[in-house]
Amino acid sequence: MQPFLEYINQHQDQFIDELKPFCAQPSVSATGEGLLDMAEMVRQKMLDLGAEVQMLTPGPDAPPIVYTTLGSGSKTLLIYNHYDVQPVDPIELWDSPPFEPTIRDGKIYGRGVADNKGHLIGRIQAIRAWQETMGELPCRIIWFIEGEEEMGSTNLESFCLKHPELMQADGCIWEMGSVNQAGEAMLHLGAKGMVYVELSVRSLAGDQHSSRATLAPNAAWRLIWALNTLKAPDETILIDGFYDHVVPPSETDLALLKTIPFDVQAYVDQIGADKLVGGVSSGLEAITRHIFQPTCTVCGIESGYTGPGLKTVLPATARAKVGFRLVPDLEPELVTDLLRQHLDKHGFSDIHMEILGGEHPGKSDPDSDLVKNAIKAVQQVYGVETPAVYPMMPASGPVWAVATSHGTPLVGFGAGYPGIQIHAPNENLRLSDYFQAIRMIGQFVANFGN
Amino acid sequence: MQPFLEYINQHQDQFIDELKPFCAQPSVSATGEGLLDMAEMVRQKMLDLGAEVQMLTPGPDAPPIVYTTLGSGSKTLLIYNHYDVQPVDPIELWDSPPFEPTIRDGKIYGRGVADNKGHLIGRIQAIRAWQETMGELPCRIIWFIEGEEEMGSTNLESFCLKHPELMQADGCIWEMGSVNQAGEAMLHLGAKGMVYVELSVRSLAGDQHSSRATLAPNAAWRLIWALNTLKAPDETILIDGFYDHVVPPSETDLALLKTIPFDVQAYVDQIGADKLVGGVSSGLEAITRHIFQPTCTVCGIESGYTGPGLKTVLPATARAKVGFRLVPDLEPELVTDLLRQHLDKHGFSDIHMEILGGEHPGKSDPDSDLVKNAIKAVQQVYGVETPAVYPMMPASGPVWAVATSHGTPLVGFGAGYPGIQIHAPNENLRLSDYFQAIRMIGQFVANFGN
Repeated sequence: MQPFLEYINQHQDQFIDELKPFCAQPSVSATGEGLLDMAEMVRQKMLDLGAEVQMLTPGPDAPPIVYTTLGSGSKTLLIYNHYDVQPVDPIELWDSPPFEPTIRDGKIYGRGVADNKGHLIGRIQAIRAWQETMGELPCRIIWFIEGEEEMGSTNLESFCLKHPELMQADGCIWEMGSVNQAGEAMLHLGAKGMVYVELSVRSLAGDQHSSRATLAPNAAWRLIWALNTLKAPDETILIDGFYDHVVPPSETDLALLKTIPFDVQAYVDQIGADKLVGGVSSGLEAITRHIFQPTCTVCGIESGYTGPGLKTVLPATARAKVGFRLVPDLEPELVTDLLRQHLDKHGFSDIHMEILGGEHPGKSDPDSDLVKNAIKAVQQVYGVETPAVYPMMPASGPVWAVATSHGTPLVGFGAGYPGIQIHAPNENLRLSDYFQAIRMIGQFVANFGN
Repeated sequence: MQPFLEYINQHQDQFIDELKPFCAQPSVSATGEGLLDMAEMVRQKMLDLGAEVQMLTPGPDAPPIVYTTLGSGSKTLLIYNHYDVQPVDPIELWDSPPFEPTIRDGKIYGRGVADNKGHLIGRIQAIRAWQETMGELPCRIIWFIEGEEEMGSTNLESFCLKHPELMQADGCIWEMGSVNQAGEAMLHLGAKGMVYVELSVRSLAGDQHSSRATLAPNAAWRLIWALNTLKAPDETILIDGFYDHVVPPSETDLALLKTIPFDVQAYVDQIGADKLVGGVSSGLEAITRHIFQPTCTVCGIESGYTGPGLKTVLPATARAKVGFRLVPDLEPELVTDLLRQHLDKHGFSDIHMEILGGEHPGKSDPDSDLVKNAIKAVQQVYGVETPAVYPMMPASGPVWAVATSHGTPLVGFGAGYPGIQIHAPNENLRLSDYFQAIRMIGQFVANFGN
């Protein structure tokens, strides 16, 4: 691997220069901005590697999947990435414009630099470095790059179930991963699922003077009361039957959890909170909760007058966006069924529910060859004897649709770090992590194809 | 009064023409837009009546009070009006631009036409009609016209307490009033108080990816849980000690309540609700509740992402605007003290409270000469033997600061009607009510000065 590693050391400026235009190109799946241009940029980059590329359409009006194959060999590696990004709001909190990638203090800032363009481009750089220094790839690669991950991969599940042949592989590398506080790569073996709904209510034909509050129902109150029945201040999710479907961690899971360092105070300081929810204070308790507990999150709420000064109005409408992170065996359809039943049972049949997206949780076998090859690569690149292994990522992605529903083992690693700020202002990636992630892909491919 | 009444009949077009420019001039106290221009227009109109006018400054940066005196006589009548209006949001729901007064189907539409410019201009027309037809006014008039009523008359209370000599009078006519479904004037003898706060919370240094919801506190949830402790879904206000300060209606109050027609089904239809809050179904129950119960209203709430599509974000901040309508003896300072204590006691000391405005409730003696003269005028103008008398308006105003704290009896009447839409899109006044209100002022002044 020596020539490969030397190439990485010598081409760092180029790796940054090639990342920047990808981060400068908006590709916001929530609004559709720039998605097609972005897909075309990815396609060109793949063609430059000598790959075969098909632009697949996962559903009506969906941005294309850049479906790429390259190399040959007895084993097939599936790589999953996405080229879409989250919206930039609240834009006023960015220290530099989100679509002008900017380097400060050894970090590159911009929307999508970490989630997921830095990982996609870093992996492309690794493949090219391999080709330039090692020649033929040691395995066949299927690269699946979609454009609606940040929208919950709306069309992907039905597409993947219809076309399992496109995903047939011996293992799958997931879109990204992170290093720990010490800068050492960690692995993950899957992801939580999610389901995202908009709850809304109309209580009146139109807004009214607030003096009518003695008699006229208030949409904001209706929504607040309904939401309050979903989760208690101690963070217990109150939806009837919800926890019946939560599978506790296995013995193997518990052993893996002990490999994961978690400094509660550092985490509290980093997020700028007073304390963690539920009064969690030990690292093991925190990481167990983080990985094996589902969530119910108000991602947004809006009703009535929120401008300056006072306006004594009684709002006729209110709406909230509510996202759930799902552990096995909480499936999206099950959760929305439970939620609807819960609302109706608790007197909130006036609350309308619109499902905006959902993904199944997916959890992979820790004993697969794929995972062993990844652990070996971490040992080789990061010099870590026993890397941390997350049984699942706390975040979500179409792991079930792309890999675990087909029985394909899955592992994720990458260049994230605790201050990465994905989905938030000042998203960033440390350049040193970016380069390490490039080395890691090369080493992993060597192990996998061997 | 015949010449006066004939003058009203002959000058209806002029009364409309003179109202329009006042409604076309924005004067939004929440933003400050147009207040000074509006005050000057009012001053000119008063000078045209031969009045003496002083522009008084109730507080720093406050819009002026147009303090007007005219006429002479042994008795002094205080008239209270205001020239400011509510903001126009949601502007997209207006059928014609809010500051382009428009006549459709015998109604004039525009922000402020009812609250309170139609009443102010109508009264000016009545005084001029008197002067033109009857000569000298039969009493002295003090006309107190402020510019921050829609902001809770922020500076008025301390100003009035400092300058009681400016308000010395034998009785006070309040800014407005309404007719019933049959178009017959009703009276009111005071107003609820109010207090308006912004509750806000920050749980994190910045927004986070929603996968962190297992550990990172969510500002939206904190605010929802805190608000939920304030009022139950059955509309009972839960603030500890709150109802201890609610004075039940007296025997006289209960007798007056029976004069007030209230058609529950018509009200439900008019506001476009399924039913009234608390399952109220009888008219007497509804009106008793409407006048003698306090309210706690979420006027607005905002947190996180509320744009299109899904964004899986965990919000760091949340805020709500909460307004209370107060009956005796709930005073603003008492309620904010109780609210703060309640939040702290229930584990919500992280919720920040900013007081944006407050007004004491004020309730006047039903047996005063002032009220008798008003009842007589209703009999004369509207031909109603026993007019409905509201012991208090369900809405608020500085009745305590201007009148009741000085022992001045107070009565309100005017041109409102059930479809008036004040503080909401498509605020309007029926022209027939506008002309009746002009007649009513003339007749009342005749009775009062006699």
